[in-house]
Amino acid sequence: MKTDALVEQLKWRYAVKKFDPSRKIPAEQWQALESALVLSPSSFGLQPWRFIVVSDSAVRKQLRAVSWNQAQVVEASHLVVFAIKKDLNAADVERFVRRIAQVRGVSAESLSSYEQMMLDFVAQAGKGLDINAWSAQQLYIAMGVFMTAAAVLGIDTCPMEGIEPDSYDKILGLGSQGFHTLAAAAAGYRAADDKSARLAKVRYETSEVITHVGRS
Amino acid sequence: MKTDALVEQLKWRYAVKKFDPSRKIPAEQWQALESALVLSPSSFGLQPWRFIVVSDSAVRKQLRAVSWNQAQVVEASHLVVFAIKKDLNAADVERFVRRIAQVRGVSAESLSSYEQMMLDFVAQAGKGLDINAWSAQQLYIAMGVFMTAAAVLGIDTCPMEGIEPDSYDKILGLGSQGFHTLAAAAAGYRAADDKSARLAKVRYETSEVITHVGRS
Repeated sequence: MKTDALVEQLKWRYAVKKFDPSRKIPAEQWQALESALVLSPSSFGLQPWRFIVVSDSAVRKQLRAVSWNQAQVVEASHLVVFAIKKDLNAADVERFVRRIAQVRGVSAESLSSYEQMMLDFVAQAGKGLDINAWSAQQLYIAMGVFMTAAAVLGIDTCPMEGIEPDSYDKILGLGSQGFHTLAAAAAGYRAADDKSARLAKVRYETSEVITHVGRS
Repeated sequence: MKTDALVEQLKWRYAVKKFDPSRKIPAEQWQALESALVLSPSSFGLQPWRFIVVSDSAVRKQLRAVSWNQAQVVEASHLVVFAIKKDLNAADVERFVRRIAQVRGVSAESLSSYEQMMLDFVAQAGKGLDINAWSAQQLYIAMGVFMTAAAVLGIDTCPMEGIEPDSYDKILGLGSQGFHTLAAAAAGYRAADDKSARLAKVRYETSEVITHVGRS
């Protein structure tokens, strides 16, 4: 991608409040956004997450009721719920190691030092490590990847933390599967009359946000 | 950007272990990546972060010593340290409100309901809200944006959590300014002989990571 075009798309992006409910993201582009989620980087590669794409309109209505009534939940073309795997533990590490062995065609034994490093890491849970907070950080990487991938494709998004996570878990049956909702993102196309689109993007001066140590 | 090209770049991306120390990111592209950091979305728009670009080679050597000796810290073209603003509070909200008023040319009074919402939010700190964990989540959005923006430009990155945050804070003088390091990212170009480049990317099956509720 051209440098200028990237910056243009990142400036074009904003948190859309009013989506055009008549416009759907084409299947091919949605596939690409799902790929972006799957391909998101995470520490150790552990992927401590699940993404739930909610298309059922009755379910989206239920979710809207536990999302401060935000219209994006029902009006956007697509809605993704971002959930962490709760209490990531040794079993998750072992599952991941099996997956590495499968994908790379190597023995699990050859991965034992990497496995031990990850086991040592998750074993710190509760002993100075808040493993769910750690998983949450990884999940937010995926949020950043998703919004950026959408922006470069010219697809609008609206990230949403103002939701009731426990209600989301219940409605989507996530809790019983060991997952916990943290946020959601609506995706689609801004309505022509979304007032937010006309507001200047507010960022601190670059010099207040980025400092340099030495000259690059 | 074309859909196929986006997915291709996301597949091309991996956590580079060995950078080519002779290749520098051109200034124009690095500017775009700094813009991507500045433009990263955050909840409420609060930007509870600072990004430190470390070019000084002596400082990078010091950081390497507190990064499990990872060579990326000194060999990559650029190194960015990701830090949160510690203990985000009412003063940060007020500073942000002043900035909104300035950028949009509106009165601070006209923003009072938005200000109150944010003040109510940060006032929950310590009462069920871990404000530093919340800021960490926002910071990781910026990590995702940064890595994705780099990937679409054909620039390699390596995110690093395996660092000693407190030592980073000391070396960079962050603690006394109210910031705290969480992670870093090296950026540049993979060395031709980086062994990691030849390993297949390991992700769970899409069906295990993404679930659908209803048909889109």
